Amino acid sequence: MVEKEHTDLNIDALFIGDKAENADIFKSTLMKLVNQHMGWRENYMPQDMPLITEADKDSESFKKTNEKMQSVLDELSVRLRSNSVPWHSPRYFGHMNSETLMPSILAYTYAMLWNGNNVAYESSPGTSQMEEQVGKDFAALNGYKEGWGHISADGSLANMEGLWYARNVKSLPLAMKKVAPELVSGKSDWELLNMPTHEMLDLLDKADPKVADKIKNNSARAGHDMDKLGKWIVPQTKHYSWLKAADVTGVGLDNVVSCPVDEDYRLDADALEKIILDFAKDHTPILGVVAVVGSTEEGAIDPVQKVVALRDKLYNEQGIYFYLHIDAAYGSYARSMYLDEDNNFMPYDQLESVWKKYGVFQGDGEHVSKYVYDVYKAFPEAESITVDPHKMGYVPYAAGGIAIREKRMRDVIGYFPVYVYDKRSGAPATLTPYILEGSKAGATAAAVWTAHRVLPLNVSGYGKLIGRSIEAAQRFYNFLKGLSFNINGTEVEVNPLTDPDFNMVDWTFNIKGNKDLAKMNDLNLKFYQKASFVGGPVYNNDFITSHTDFATDGYGDSPVPYIESLGFSADDYHKETKVGILRACVLTPFLYDEDNFAAYAPKIKSAMEEKLTQILD
Amino acid sequence: MVEKEHTDLNIDALFIGDKAENADIFKSTLMKLVNQHMGWRENYMPQDMPLITEADKDSESFKKTNEKMQSVLDELSVRLRSNSVPWHSPRYFGHMNSETLMPSILAYTYAMLWNGNNVAYESSPGTSQMEEQVGKDFAALNGYKEGWGHISADGSLANMEGLWYARNVKSLPLAMKKVAPELVSGKSDWELLNMPTHEMLDLLDKADPKVADKIKNNSARAGHDMDKLGKWIVPQTKHYSWLKAADVTGVGLDNVVSCPVDEDYRLDADALEKIILDFAKDHTPILGVVAVVGSTEEGAIDPVQKVVALRDKLYNEQGIYFYLHIDAAYGSYARSMYLDEDNNFMPYDQLESVWKKYGVFQGDGEHVSKYVYDVYKAFPEAESITVDPHKMGYVPYAAGGIAIREKRMRDVIGYFPVYVYDKRSGAPATLTPYILEGSKAGATAAAVWTAHRVLPLNVSGYGKLIGRSIEAAQRFYNFLKGLSFNINGTEVEVNPLTDPDFNMVDWTFNIKGNKDLAKMNDLNLKFYQKASFVGGPVYNNDFITSHTDFATDGYGDSPVPYIESLGFSADDYHKETKVGILRACVLTPFLYDEDNFAAYAPKIKSAMEEKLTQILD
Repeated sequence: MVEKEHTDLNIDALFIGDKAENADIFKSTLMKLVNQHMGWRENYMPQDMPLITEADKDSESFKKTNEKMQSVLDELSVRLRSNSVPWHSPRYFGHMNSETLMPSILAYTYAMLWNGNNVAYESSPGTSQMEEQVGKDFAALNGYKEGWGHISADGSLANMEGLWYARNVKSLPLAMKKVAPELVSGKSDWELLNMPTHEMLDLLDKADPKVADKIKNNSARAGHDMDKLGKWIVPQTKHYSWLKAADVTGVGLDNVVSCPVDEDYRLDADALEKIILDFAKDHTPILGVVAVVGSTEEGAIDPVQKVVALRDKLYNEQGIYFYLHIDAAYGSYARSMYLDEDNNFMPYDQLESVWKKYGVFQGDGEHVSKYVYDVYKAFPEAESITVDPHKMGYVPYAAGGIAIREKRMRDVIGYFPVYVYDKRSGAPATLTPYILEGSKAGATAAAVWTAHRVLPLNVSGYGKLIGRSIEAAQRFYNFLKGLSFNINGTEVEVNPLTDPDFNMVDWTFNIKGNKDLAKMNDLNLKFYQKASFVGGPVYNNDFITSHTDFATDGYGDSPVPYIESLGFSADDYHKETKVGILRACVLTPFLYDEDNFAAYAPKIKSAMEEKLTQILD
Repeated sequence: MVEKEHTDLNIDALFIGDKAENADIFKSTLMKLVNQHMGWRENYMPQDMPLITEADKDSESFKKTNEKMQSVLDELSVRLRSNSVPWHSPRYFGHMNSETLMPSILAYTYAMLWNGNNVAYESSPGTSQMEEQVGKDFAALNGYKEGWGHISADGSLANMEGLWYARNVKSLPLAMKKVAPELVSGKSDWELLNMPTHEMLDLLDKADPKVADKIKNNSARAGHDMDKLGKWIVPQTKHYSWLKAADVTGVGLDNVVSCPVDEDYRLDADALEKIILDFAKDHTPILGVVAVVGSTEEGAIDPVQKVVALRDKLYNEQGIYFYLHIDAAYGSYARSMYLDEDNNFMPYDQLESVWKKYGVFQGDGEHVSKYVYDVYKAFPEAESITVDPHKMGYVPYAAGGIAIREKRMRDVIGYFPVYVYDKRSGAPATLTPYILEGSKAGATAAAVWTAHRVLPLNVSGYGKLIGRSIEAAQRFYNFLKGLSFNINGTEVEVNPLTDPDFNMVDWTFNIKGNKDLAKMNDLNLKFYQKASFVGGPVYNNDFITSHTDFATDGYGDSPVPYIESLGFSADDYHKETKVGILRACVLTPFLYDEDNFAAYAPKIKSAMEEKLTQILD
């Protein structure tokens, strides 16, 4: 009988460890791989003599050049050891950095020795095949049955690619009207600009290939109808990449509309409906809507299920349709927690028992709300999703990614350069015509492929790893909730922002009774300066965190409920134009454990206390 | 007395070697670096106990998980060794792959252990500082005194960034007219659309910062005036990334104009002038012109000096100005051949003697034409230049780059996200607001920085390395020129395309007397299939090359002189719609040497002969 349930993955075996506990495993595996590469070089056409002889190596210039290389690498080593952030330690509660997976580091290093370029299949058959598999992994992770995906340079570019898809897709029906009006006869421009994506792709499929090409060449790709496509709606918590993407793609900042968020920093679906209906009044279409799953500053998770329901309602009742992109650069890998080993999305009421079986969480209690579960359940309804392996995939930078709901969407943006895509030459279908990049490291695909094989994208693999980070974040949140300091008679309170949707924990310090927001902002900025590279040699710093501002400019009034809960008024916020926040991405795979957390809690507390004392003195 | 002349760099000491001759140096240095990283982990807060204990490591699940990791890595190893292209060998004359620099591989591996993200300074102080230096290196390499640069994900994105700059810069004067008409009073729209870049930047500098922001927010970034900016002219040899860039940036394929190339596949400056003047007749402005230095299919070098002279003439005589971007993704590092150790661009008549002193070439004779020299001399006149370390920088993928002539151009495209750029927090100016990406590997910066320190970007470093590749290409070209085969009585001729401008050599095989272009195309395609991954296990293949088509669609009539020289007519070409070409990027650092080349020439000849025999039988 085959044992299907892989319940025994041991996450500790997959990281080097904060004290390099697994250094020996890392080094011996690395050497094995490096030797295999060297043997491969030696044994390709073994009849060929080496071109660098022992005599060459014995020359003065060879030795001097080697010495030069060694001394530059020594400088590199000194610079990195003295100017790098110790995110490997459980004392790090800062930016989105942590341990990365040992198998991915090893795979990257190994594959880099071959230096494949996954854009040119002929130069990288091995790693191109891996990327094809990774694309399928992305689609399966997000519940896309007919989907496709690929690795991108990063999440900002994946977002830009999503907008590129949206823009070109949205412009197709207008191009059909010009080139092949019979395809869309009887439809008004308003109807054409509100045609569901699958419907227009069906029409494109129906067209003769030459006509389809002509349609594409009269779409937004050619510069047509750019001013007719309408508004691109993003939540107030938006990553700045959305502004950049709107600029770069020619959609234009004027067409970016910011949708308010609620007091949990989640997109407000009612506000979204109002915005869309207001635009509909004067027949301004909606190019698309972005839902963020794991916002950059709060880890907030937008209500994808409500956006999908709204879209259904608006289309059925009023014929209004919009493209939906999920910016899940941060949150997408967490969908693996809800997938069983056959990639089925599990029922909510079974989760806790399944998670218990697989050891996803250590403690009891509700670990994920029904709300968050429903968000992930709705993923397959979006047209495209940003997926970053270098965030919750624990793969080294730079590895972003995107998945699209229907593989045939690719044809709307595809290009066919001769030397990278030639059917007659026998090269299988490659990524090249469909992505922004023109060269990309095969090593990245090897790193992601290896990670996905060691940790499957379901409850038995990544689900378990991400459960660890969520549990550690919950421990940190609970730790902060009960925390206060008495600094030489001054009482300092700790005020977490929200109960985290995911694994990010934001908070502020405030002196008890302080009613001056400027003073609180100053305190938290100073704390950050003491708890980051700013405050001197970072290697000597025993607690590190990150800092951000929620400013009126971008956030509108969404921080008001929080600052009111601290005793400030909306006026204070408007006057100061911002509230400064401390911010921890809790990615460490080690603090999920009660004993581990208990060992570090007093260290963190005393480090905070010392910094506050320095500031308040 | 300081010895300034570093004439003794030994390139052989900087590569692993095609028979892994330097494997021991690589491995011992790698281990030293890995141990330094492990020590760094252990010694950060040495009072903290390890979280993974020996007992943990002794558990069954730990062992099983480690076994799983090892077995996935075994599969990775098998896949890479059996599906990777042996570009490390002097038998490889294919796509743009070769040995990469040992110091860069080591630096990348080492820095990856820290996993810095160079977009967030706080997470990567060490590697961010290195990227700043690399940006200065790029500017100096291209002769920009007030310039700036950065690493990008690849050359296609650098090209896209160049177009983004051009588009937003070009739209500024129209925005000034709307927002601050006093700045441009008395100027017609035609004059505004033909304002030299430095002039409009001066105007922007003169404006109050708030007004400058308002101007930017009324420029193309906001979606304004996208249809007024005119045409983007690229040579017929254009990389397909230019079509993609025009699509993505909303400039639109309709605004891309293809400029004919001459019989050497170089942009035809007379044709360019005619195109520009034709557009000027009906007041259609020129958004910009792209000159390619190292075309993807031919390694052809466009006459930048003529384009610059044309621009000067047109502006002085007719007030016509255009943005100039050099796509030197491939060719830019070769500019180091012309720079002395103080970064001065050397006089042409001194080159051969300086090159002799530094050992840039082994053989005598003219190695670089005055024409090519003048191209590189004109670089500083362009507004922006694509520079790819992962091509002639011999740095592993993915490492593209861009340099801009004036640092202040950045302000036209800049964004300022709070958490990555905060003056008050003490973070120095970072890349973030000015680039397309939102995350990028610090390891890439470490790899490029290390390469530039070991091999300076002048005649003493990269100049010497690139000289090797040019000399090897010239040897290969001369080898092909004299080559023919008698395959069981059938004579097969070898016809190189052009005397290479750089280090790429294109050629075709043809059966002597054959007047059927289809038959010749078929022969060369079949040869490629036998000389690539298509023809079975690539590791067993003893000669590997690449293949491309020059098709009427993209190339127009530029291949006609070549095919006529082979006895075909223009009609044959139009009928077949293409001519198939074999294509070798000669990047190997070893075949510059006469003896080395002589050792491989008969091997290559006999491998070609065997493949031709299989095809013709």
